Amino acid sequence: MPSVSTDKAMRRAIELAARGLGTTSPNPVVGCVILDAAGEIVGEGFHAYAGGPHAEIVALAQAGDRAKGGTAVVTMEPCDHTGRTGPCTRALIRAGVATVAIGVTDPNPVAGGGTGTLRAAGVDVVSGVHAAEAEAGNLAWLTAVRREWPYVIWKYAATADGRSAATDGTSMWITSEAARIDVHALRGTVDAVIVGSGTVLADNPRLTARNLRDGTLAIRQPLRVVVDSKGNTPADARVRDAAARTWIATAAEVGATSDGRVDLPALLAVLYQRGARAVLLEGGPTLAGAFLAAGLIDKIVGYVAPKLLGAGPTALADAGVHTITDAIDLDFVDITRVGPDLRITALPRKREG
Amino acid sequence: MPSVSTDKAMRRAIELAARGLGTTSPNPVVGCVILDAAGEIVGEGFHAYAGGPHAEIVALAQAGDRAKGGTAVVTMEPCDHTGRTGPCTRALIRAGVATVAIGVTDPNPVAGGGTGTLRAAGVDVVSGVHAAEAEAGNLAWLTAVRREWPYVIWKYAATADGRSAATDGTSMWITSEAARIDVHALRGTVDAVIVGSGTVLADNPRLTARNLRDGTLAIRQPLRVVVDSKGNTPADARVRDAAARTWIATAAEVGATSDGRVDLPALLAVLYQRGARAVLLEGGPTLAGAFLAAGLIDKIVGYVAPKLLGAGPTALADAGVHTITDAIDLDFVDITRVGPDLRITALPRKREG
Repeated sequence: MPSVSTDKAMRRAIELAARGLGTTSPNPVVGCVILDAAGEIVGEGFHAYAGGPHAEIVALAQAGDRAKGGTAVVTMEPCDHTGRTGPCTRALIRAGVATVAIGVTDPNPVAGGGTGTLRAAGVDVVSGVHAAEAEAGNLAWLTAVRREWPYVIWKYAATADGRSAATDGTSMWITSEAARIDVHALRGTVDAVIVGSGTVLADNPRLTARNLRDGTLAIRQPLRVVVDSKGNTPADARVRDAAARTWIATAAEVGATSDGRVDLPALLAVLYQRGARAVLLEGGPTLAGAFLAAGLIDKIVGYVAPKLLGAGPTALADAGVHTITDAIDLDFVDITRVGPDLRITALPRKREG
Repeated sequence: MPSVSTDKAMRRAIELAARGLGTTSPNPVVGCVILDAAGEIVGEGFHAYAGGPHAEIVALAQAGDRAKGGTAVVTMEPCDHTGRTGPCTRALIRAGVATVAIGVTDPNPVAGGGTGTLRAAGVDVVSGVHAAEAEAGNLAWLTAVRREWPYVIWKYAATADGRSAATDGTSMWITSEAARIDVHALRGTVDAVIVGSGTVLADNPRLTARNLRDGTLAIRQPLRVVVDSKGNTPADARVRDAAARTWIATAAEVGATSDGRVDLPALLAVLYQRGARAVLLEGGPTLAGAFLAAGLIDKIVGYVAPKLLGAGPTALADAGVHTITDAIDLDFVDITRVGPDLRITALPRKREG
């Protein structure tokens, strides 16, 4: 086997880490590659689910004695505390690795600090290897942990003229099966799916992540959150079924704004405390407008169907913009065809204070 | 010089033809390449403006004696009548070309019939060379002439959520300068630009094709058409300035529908009679809705800005659709980034009777 550079091993570790997206919260995704003293890959691992073994432990188990004198290449600083699993620093030291190469530092004050422990034990630590890519691979988690607030993705589906339903309320299906399969995959990468009670009343969605062809549910389901200031969600609404956990977030429970609506920053703070790091806002238009107006959206994923309606509810309403110079500016970061539809990914520009 | 195949020469002729887009109406765009007996390119030409020399005449003049025994490769069947210029068939026969290779047949009953005249004179005629590409290069003109009705392109500019202005009516500028330059280039390829009187009252546009950087006007300006059932266009509206011709199309002049609006098929028939083969509909939303509802749109070019408004007028209204299954179906045929914006080109699907 050819020897592998630390750089190349880090790229591989970042790939491995991504396999955990959607199943590790409240933990980050982490990937690890162990190189022996000759630079040959002797172990690989990623963190698959909270409570399960960390990436380093999986990779060290695979490497066995060959880790001795080698290098552990890991996308995030190894943890230094005993949570549901023992500290990775101790395992790395015990295995006798000579060097640990780290992508990004762990911002978590509880788990962080691994670098100091490793160095104290005589391990050579190299930080910031492919830091930008390692950071991008954990963008939602790092953003959330640094500000103690989940990363919020707003997803919408609309016609080319921005309508989310016809005037008679019909909307099945604006987008193609391919786009809907893509949405279910997106749900599989987040910890919670948020809708307003109006969407529940209008569309009665299941909000589960499932295989659209055979209806089977994904093993891990995001928490279903209904923002429902007055508790109007019907007792027989599909979101209340047994397929996944559901939280009907009322103003009484979460806190209310002066006009009686659910306080959205408070809602997100509760979700963070409950372990959510990435959440998907799926509508309706007024709730999306309230999130946008408050600057609470981190990423936008729009599915645009090759259809025109010319009337009916729009995908977005009441975002607090009254004149063109106050428009919410975005950057289109990706445009991809998904079946006959377009998926437009955009990031809101940071507004100047 | 290397010898060139008829196929390759036709591709070159199609490229040449496209240089005339926007300046040849009521004529088609035509390109011509003359190969000598050895297959070397000895002449090239395209039709640049109505009343000017046809592509064949330009190419033959360049080839001179070397056309003798050679091949004329021309995107459309050479004309056989004396209009503002003499028939191209006679010029080709006189030059002694042995073969004429044609892309598409001329559907015009007056100018057509060239193939028969050429064959009667002993010229070998090959038809349908790269017919699909040659047809595509003249799509608007061929569509218009075959049905005696201009090819209609609907252009709109909107935010990602489908708004064409903010609630206070401001819309300058939703799209970038790059997109606006693209629109002016598009105006330069059509014979008329159509807006509703509401757009004139709201935005007071010039509707000229001009250089946005220095304000200079393109040499050829499309006819400016204001669809204005009751003749509400103000006397001092910019569309009435001297920069280009303008037609205020009233219901009294064109004909009216039962609800007093300008009859759109009658409007298009008049424009065809006045020589328009391709027209650009630029709004507003209600006029666009009326064109779409009547199935009068051939192509859609939408400029989508990376902005959200959440309120304000939509780019499209009143297209006669009330339920999702009646949505106007499109095919997205091209998605291109124009500066920070997206340009989405779509074709309406033919509706089944």
